[in-house]
Amino acid sequence: MAKIQIGVIGGGVCDNKTEMIAEEIGRELAMRGVILICGGLGGVMEACARGAKRQGGNTIGVLPGNSREEANRYIDFQIVTNMGHARNAIVVASSDALIAVGGEYGTLSEIALALKMGKPVVIIESKWVIEGAIRSSDPVEAVDLALNAIA
Amino acid sequence: MAKIQIGVIGGGVCDNKTEMIAEEIGRELAMRGVILICGGLGGVMEACARGAKRQGGNTIGVLPGNSREEANRYIDFQIVTNMGHARNAIVVASSDALIAVGGEYGTLSEIALALKMGKPVVIIESKWVIEGAIRSSDPVEAVDLALNAIA
Amino acid sequence: MAKIQIGVIGGGVCDNKTEMIAEEIGRELAMRGVILICGGLGGVMEACARGAKRQGGNTIGVLPGNSREEANRYIDFQIVTNMGHARNAIVVASSDALIAVGGEYGTLSEIALALKMGKPVVIIESKWVIEGAIRSSDPVEAVDLALNAIA
Amino acid sequence: MAKIQIGVIGGGVCDNKTEMIAEEIGRELAMRGVILICGGLGGVMEACARGAKRQGGNTIGVLPGNSREEANRYIDFQIVTNMGHARNAIVVASSDALIAVGGEYGTLSEIALALKMGKPVVIIESKWVIEGAIRSSDPVEAVDLALNAIA
Repeated sequence: MAKIQIGVIGGGVCDNKTEMIAEEIGRELAMRGVILICGGLGGVMEACARGAKRQGGNTIGVLPGNSREEANRYIDFQIVTNMGHARNAIVVASSDALIAVGGEYGTLSEIALALKMGKPVVIIESKWVIEGAIRSSDPVEAVDLALNAIA
Repeated sequence: MAKIQIGVIGGGVCDNKTEMIAEEIGRELAMRGVILICGGLGGVMEACARGAKRQGGNTIGVLPGNSREEANRYIDFQIVTNMGHARNAIVVASSDALIAVGGEYGTLSEIALALKMGKPVVIIESKWVIEGAIRSSDPVEAVDLALNAIA
Repeated sequence: MAKIQIGVIGGGVCDNKTEMIAEEIGRELAMRGVILICGGLGGVMEACARGAKRQGGNTIGVLPGNSREEANRYIDFQIVTNMGHARNAIVVASSDALIAVGGEYGTLSEIALALKMGKPVVIIESKWVIEGAIRSSDPVEAVDLALNAIA
Repeated sequence: MAKIQIGVIGGGVCDNKTEMIAEEIGRELAMRGVILICGGLGGVMEACARGAKRQGGNTIGVLPGNSREEANRYIDFQIVTNMGHARNAIVVASSDALIAVGGEYGTLSEIALALKMGKPVVIIESKWVIEGAIRSSDPVEAVDLALNAIA
């Protein structure tokens, strides 16, 4: 059986609080044997990957550019798309559920795309209020909600 | 000088009022010599293309599937992407500005992507309220606002 | 009825002879009312678009980068993919048949992809010998062969 | 340091001999700690993934369709692109080198794309003769040649 793949999405730059939440989400995912998929760059993407790796989890970075070296150092597997923003559709389609941490327009675009594709989306620390997305204010709860929504 | 290209985005299925608005927007764009870009399928995409063609304009359909025949009959030029939802990024990137007519999650995703890419977005007949997008309640005004935002 | 769309593929840099052949192919396509699709940049892409425009035809450029301005000045409609080499799949999928003029590895990749998709491919002035592709040594004949292969 | 990622490409259907070669290549890659990237479906893709998994290696499948379930059962990580043939560009761009086993037009297209991107390509059991690609007739040697070409 293939392991669960969960996508964590959020800004490439973020504040400390958002970073701590993303890192805890990565840790929680790894503790439950979930594979982490993200955009592979900095900010939320780096924090969640760091959390996952420190817990021994596996991390996949779906990169926008044309080189593996663009990935943060907590990414195990670099997928080089050379597709810019359009790579978000691959992050979403490859994930059984998504957790959005903070984020701006790019994250909003991914949340909406995930809902369009019928994937469960948990939103945490976000300014976006979107019907259909599940809100949470706690990283552990967010991971539970995402996993329950898949089951 | 290349002509202005404006993307019209919205649902593949829509009610009568939304359809009439989309058709009028297509007509207005054609009257001003603007090239219409859309997703090439039904609903808002077909209505705006019909409006543009009846006014003698040019229409491009950026299709999600793998065949030109998927396009509605008001599309002059069929771009076959075979990329599903990810084709939205091409609609947005190819447009100098976007006009969103009604729409659900797919449209929200495109609006957010357009704002992320720094493109002007005019929203009409929409349930989405998004900071950074320009709201309008009239098709002619919507086209004016989009054109002014480019200039 | 949608007009025929033919893709012309070849290098972004080319010698004079190749350029003259590409330009004549563009001219012939326009004379027959065929829409020209190409990668939108220089070399063969620019020469065929120039030929088509001088004959009053329509030209579409499926661009690899993130800006309409990347296109050569003979392109009527700029499709901005931001997908790099992967945009070749869109050129091929959008074309009813393809004509390859000269070209290196990039062109070979497109020829093979076209044959994989079951599209007719005419090759002219090329070092590649590929089973399944139609060879020609004359621009007018190449256009005739491509059109006949569609019919 | 990120581990080496090597792409193995070839037909979705293949004969027994080709399958055995692909499986041995997968095994050899895993023995050397290399991550295997492939298109995730049957034939060569399944055989090389099976070889890698039986040796305890890691396997990534870059899938053409819209579901993780499309992957063969030897794939650890499913990347869902929904891009059809255009996903080949992601396989190539994500790999430090490629090994082509047998294959028809689709494989030829990937070989040419890899050479265009400047990646080393080793060809084995192939009918294609392409300047710039490295030929081999032995699976172990093919893996050695690919690794040496990266170094």
